Amino acid sequence: MRIEARLEERGITLPEPIKPYPGVQVRFAWVRVRGNRAYISPHMKLHENGDVAVPYGKVGAEVSLEQARDAAQGAALAMLASLKRELGDLDRVTAWLTVTGLINAAPDFEGNTEVLNGFSEVILDLYGEEAGLHARMAPGVVTPFRQSVIVAAEVEIDA
Amino acid sequence: MRIEARLEERGITLPEPIKPYPGVQVRFAWVRVRGNRAYISPHMKLHENGDVAVPYGKVGAEVSLEQARDAAQGAALAMLASLKRELGDLDRVTAWLTVTGLINAAPDFEGNTEVLNGFSEVILDLYGEEAGLHARMAPGVVTPFRQSVIVAAEVEIDA
Amino acid sequence: MRIEARLEERGITLPEPIKPYPGVQVRFAWVRVRGNRAYISPHMKLHENGDVAVPYGKVGAEVSLEQARDAAQGAALAMLASLKRELGDLDRVTAWLTVTGLINAAPDFEGNTEVLNGFSEVILDLYGEEAGLHARMAPGVVTPFRQSVIVAAEVEIDA
Repeated sequence: MRIEARLEERGITLPEPIKPYPGVQVRFAWVRVRGNRAYISPHMKLHENGDVAVPYGKVGAEVSLEQARDAAQGAALAMLASLKRELGDLDRVTAWLTVTGLINAAPDFEGNTEVLNGFSEVILDLYGEEAGLHARMAPGVVTPFRQSVIVAAEVEIDA
Repeated sequence: MRIEARLEERGITLPEPIKPYPGVQVRFAWVRVRGNRAYISPHMKLHENGDVAVPYGKVGAEVSLEQARDAAQGAALAMLASLKRELGDLDRVTAWLTVTGLINAAPDFEGNTEVLNGFSEVILDLYGEEAGLHARMAPGVVTPFRQSVIVAAEVEIDA
Repeated sequence: MRIEARLEERGITLPEPIKPYPGVQVRFAWVRVRGNRAYISPHMKLHENGDVAVPYGKVGAEVSLEQARDAAQGAALAMLASLKRELGDLDRVTAWLTVTGLINAAPDFEGNTEVLNGFSEVILDLYGEEAGLHARMAPGVVTPFRQSVIVAAEVEIDA
């Protein structure tokens, strides 16, 4: 329980499971575990009770870079909460492989890299460079429900 | 041949191979099989003879949510047709892992999740929850040829 | 060193490591190697000294299809340079699996497929069909720093 000890040291509480918006049909897995891999659907910043907390709108226009960076950080905590529920122990994640940050970017936004650093820094802080470093992409797209930032990943797990 | 029996029970005929647009050079594999994985390039709704049948334009503006949802369903059938040709038997797909739905969304479209449910419901109906459930993302992007919805995937196969 | 011999035959010199823009924090791996996989973050066309050489702006508006196709070709060389540094020998790439081309496309751009052919043709020329063929997607998105084309990949390696 090394990772959970680190979360506690930092005073971080992981949120409850995502409460989907009323009427939304979730026809997918938030985390798909198979063999030594977990494939993770895009997560978003949550309140502690699982309510969605990500700001809405175009990053670089309606949402600032700082707000988006903070939302990416929150997405990391939501994802860790899902992984903990699915795997039992966050130490079972043996390597972060890829991270995809979907940013609801204004057409000429340039700060994708800095926004997704909010996510990556949480992972690197908790897992260290060897397990935590990952390949990454941060495309500006039209996100579901105009969420400013949502983040997906693929990790290696102790099967 | 369980999956093919289910397709027959539902009265579904899979389409012929994709006929690319005249002049388009296809420098990639529609399905890339390697070891116990098949990596699948974005597929689109087809007519039975393999002609492209996906509606064109921005979802939420020129194309309705219902049309886009139907196009995602059609993309599932086109993908199954490609997998059948590549693998011989659709039962060789032992687990759906990830699905990426590329939606040619208008800038403020919010219904990505509902659109891609059209794809996921076909897979869950045919493969069931254990093999069929998948992680998923549905970014709104600028698609090739203004196709309203195209869908990519990664699956585990019996090698 | 078959692949490097082919590069030499074609008179191609691979560029130096990417020099990130001043002030950009790189909190990710350009190449993440794990087991028999390398996961590769988006690469962009470089000058020989590693300075970024990709044109800026929207493809189909500020950047022409031909310029974007050339930028995708340059991204392939930058990626090969990263892989060579990481793996020692480019022959250790035993199969190209997936390629993701992020194109900073104007809203009605239609030429994604042709743009990314610039990348795929380099890989197919060097690796041949069996090792080089790959599944692929080419979404039009808002890229970091308004780079016109950047390309990510996943490859199988001799571990």
